[in-house]
Amino acid sequence: MKTSQEIQQLKNSFANCREEALKDFYTFLKFQSISTDPAYKKDVLACADWVTSYIKKLGFHVEIWPTTGYPTIFAHYDKAGPSQPTLLIYNHYDVQPVDPLDLWTTPPFEPTVRNGQVYARGAQDNKGQCFYVLLALKTLIEQNGSLPINIKLCIEGEEECGSAGLSKIVETKAKELSADYLAVVDLGIPDIDTPTITLGIRGMMTMEVEVQGSHSDLHSGSHGGMVFNPLHALVELLAGLRDKSGKITIPGFYDDVDAISDKDKKSVSWDFDEAKYEKTFGTKVTGGEINYSPLERNWLRPNLEINGITGGYAGPGFKSVIPAKASAKLSCRLVPHQNPQKIGKLIADHLEKHAPKGVKVTVHVHPGGDVAARSSADTAIATAFTKAYEEIFGKTCQKIYCGASIPVAVKLTKASGAELALVGLGLPDDDIHAPNEHFGLDRIEKGFLSIARTIQLLRQG
Amino acid sequence: MKTSQEIQQLKNSFANCREEALKDFYTFLKFQSISTDPAYKKDVLACADWVTSYIKKLGFHVEIWPTTGYPTIFAHYDKAGPSQPTLLIYNHYDVQPVDPLDLWTTPPFEPTVRNGQVYARGAQDNKGQCFYVLLALKTLIEQNGSLPINIKLCIEGEEECGSAGLSKIVETKAKELSADYLAVVDLGIPDIDTPTITLGIRGMMTMEVEVQGSHSDLHSGSHGGMVFNPLHALVELLAGLRDKSGKITIPGFYDDVDAISDKDKKSVSWDFDEAKYEKTFGTKVTGGEINYSPLERNWLRPNLEINGITGGYAGPGFKSVIPAKASAKLSCRLVPHQNPQKIGKLIADHLEKHAPKGVKVTVHVHPGGDVAARSSADTAIATAFTKAYEEIFGKTCQKIYCGASIPVAVKLTKASGAELALVGLGLPDDDIHAPNEHFGLDRIEKGFLSIARTIQLLRQG
Repeated sequence: MKTSQEIQQLKNSFANCREEALKDFYTFLKFQSISTDPAYKKDVLACADWVTSYIKKLGFHVEIWPTTGYPTIFAHYDKAGPSQPTLLIYNHYDVQPVDPLDLWTTPPFEPTVRNGQVYARGAQDNKGQCFYVLLALKTLIEQNGSLPINIKLCIEGEEECGSAGLSKIVETKAKELSADYLAVVDLGIPDIDTPTITLGIRGMMTMEVEVQGSHSDLHSGSHGGMVFNPLHALVELLAGLRDKSGKITIPGFYDDVDAISDKDKKSVSWDFDEAKYEKTFGTKVTGGEINYSPLERNWLRPNLEINGITGGYAGPGFKSVIPAKASAKLSCRLVPHQNPQKIGKLIADHLEKHAPKGVKVTVHVHPGGDVAARSSADTAIATAFTKAYEEIFGKTCQKIYCGASIPVAVKLTKASGAELALVGLGLPDDDIHAPNEHFGLDRIEKGFLSIARTIQLLRQG
Repeated sequence: MKTSQEIQQLKNSFANCREEALKDFYTFLKFQSISTDPAYKKDVLACADWVTSYIKKLGFHVEIWPTTGYPTIFAHYDKAGPSQPTLLIYNHYDVQPVDPLDLWTTPPFEPTVRNGQVYARGAQDNKGQCFYVLLALKTLIEQNGSLPINIKLCIEGEEECGSAGLSKIVETKAKELSADYLAVVDLGIPDIDTPTITLGIRGMMTMEVEVQGSHSDLHSGSHGGMVFNPLHALVELLAGLRDKSGKITIPGFYDDVDAISDKDKKSVSWDFDEAKYEKTFGTKVTGGEINYSPLERNWLRPNLEINGITGGYAGPGFKSVIPAKASAKLSCRLVPHQNPQKIGKLIADHLEKHAPKGVKVTVHVHPGGDVAARSSADTAIATAFTKAYEEIFGKTCQKIYCGASIPVAVKLTKASGAELALVGLGLPDDDIHAPNEHFGLDRIEKGFLSIARTIQLLRQG
């Protein structure tokens, strides 16, 4: 069969199943599977059950891997036999918290379509991308009675809080995970018309900083000027972590960071439209290490961000209080060779050492963390995705890096012994991790086509 | 009658009415009269009604003065006639917010007695001190059929959020407020055995600072290192407001501040037990301008405190977010000659001028604010309070300053044309403005005695 015929057949199949598929997608989106907040435990587990049931119906053999946190759903389909390669696909069924809730136009767990976009928490990250993978498998099986290659699925429930559970067991599951190719379907494209594969993602370290002053909150008149306000200590400590050029001031922070090489510069597309970025996000690219270009800072340089600060009175009006305690959540994105725990300890030691007299600084570096991953554009899996994307988009497939992290990507690559591909159809303005996250219905179709077509292209003989 | 007999009679009257009086006190404490948060409007108004009703029963003529915010209760008792002086007493019926609620041992609006202390929001500030004033008036009337001097009451409902409403009308009410003496009963004593009158309080300016970055929250991986995180901008701006010695760095901030004079040093008691302070509050006196002594910093120097910061994710676990917005609540305590609006504008201009590129800083200086007040130890009212306290405590009455503020004190003094006395029986560790605020039942009695006895001592002829 000709390429164009095979693509057309997939398109027809999608058109036939679209209505029912979207119903399933909305059901998936309705689960409040927020993994970082224990209040949602029941919802996260119910979501895992739904995904498991969906996969079982496809004829996959499913194993639920218990972890220290939420279960990982592992499934395999071996009917293509030993002459065909095995593709391991990674997704996750958990999502980020939804606050600030009042900024959502429609409730985050009531999927709503506006202008061809589905609005819901997880609509893109990663339920949208997970769903088009599952739909591609379902449709190929319905269309042909079987899959052309062997498929393994690894769908976890803690990606949004660091994948601690899966990380701990992944090495012991090397046999089960063993595969020729690994597709991590949680990445993106720079704009709606440009197919792209990603050659690297950053690692990550997260921590909490707590500054304790007095036993209890104090009246800011009766005590103001005498005690060291924990909020002052916190802002001074955090401000001191970066210099005026955006460079991290902690000794040793950059020790393991490679200089940006000519290879790095040549292997990917460096197109960046600053005016478009500013218009889309309403802010300038003035943060971070200003001596590097915006994409260098986001792709190939580590950085440190404050992700939350709490302390004192946050309600309407005013309260004359010196809080007993103030705290912050920090994270670093890391580049190859940087170890998250080593970086965490450097920052923790620095903050504790610089605590002003009168307050106690306690830093909790979250266990684990993830190292940066790199993948090659020359592998069979990268070649197959490149070809599939070019057939579907009708345009040359670009190569980029990504500033985000997939906690378990490196460990999964090692354990499976597979060639890694980092793919996906997220757009920079999908508002993932933010209010009004959304994903285009057109990308459900394109994602479905890209997975189905890549599977066809990986078939041997 | 001898002094000792008069005091004993008051003590007997207190013993007789104690049980019923405490019931009334607990009713007063149960009103959630949080003036700064509009959600409590109904409760604040209900509290005002209860106070009004209590005063009316004493035979006072009561006027409710509407303001732009909550009403001020004004009441007068003129039966002592023109040969007797008039004492104006100021209190407030509103209270501070209660968060962090989880740190309260018992609910803030369910008064509970433990070890002789009543625990409730407002138990001291200012419902406790307001209540013993009312109880003294009630008991004197019951005991003697009338009051020995003329009394006016000014009990407002917005002290905890800056007294904006009363401040605006106080000059127009000069005739009604006209008095010989003004007692502001909202102050404290350094320890339970030491009677004290206060010769000065600081002024206050409050403001909110908002830093806006992108249109919406951003994923900290996809955007980290590129944009200027509003939380980074906020901590850098706030950290920059003070130098290493605790001095405020804003040009002009100290322009109107007088040097601490010999008179200041001689007129009050400078006893300060640093070890005891550290033990009581669990923190050292290492904050503020370290080149001044702790009491100088709190009493006679202006300061700037951060009273709250909000931005990003504050829930359990972690969220990989660069927030669109971060904000802070700030306040300054001011000394004589410093103008709150002038100081507010200096800080606002400084913050807006130093905003890093890529974020927008907006500062809202709350209207009004209050100037510092001073009172003399040589007036008839100070003399009467000093004698009453010495009779009741059996110890020499000390003079101190106070670092806190009574927003309307200066305006009220001017409008009434009265001699000002700043008095009260608050203790530094009553946890006002904090969880587990409390007030001793022994101080309800001592407060009652001090007011009743001062009124007796002010009687002419």
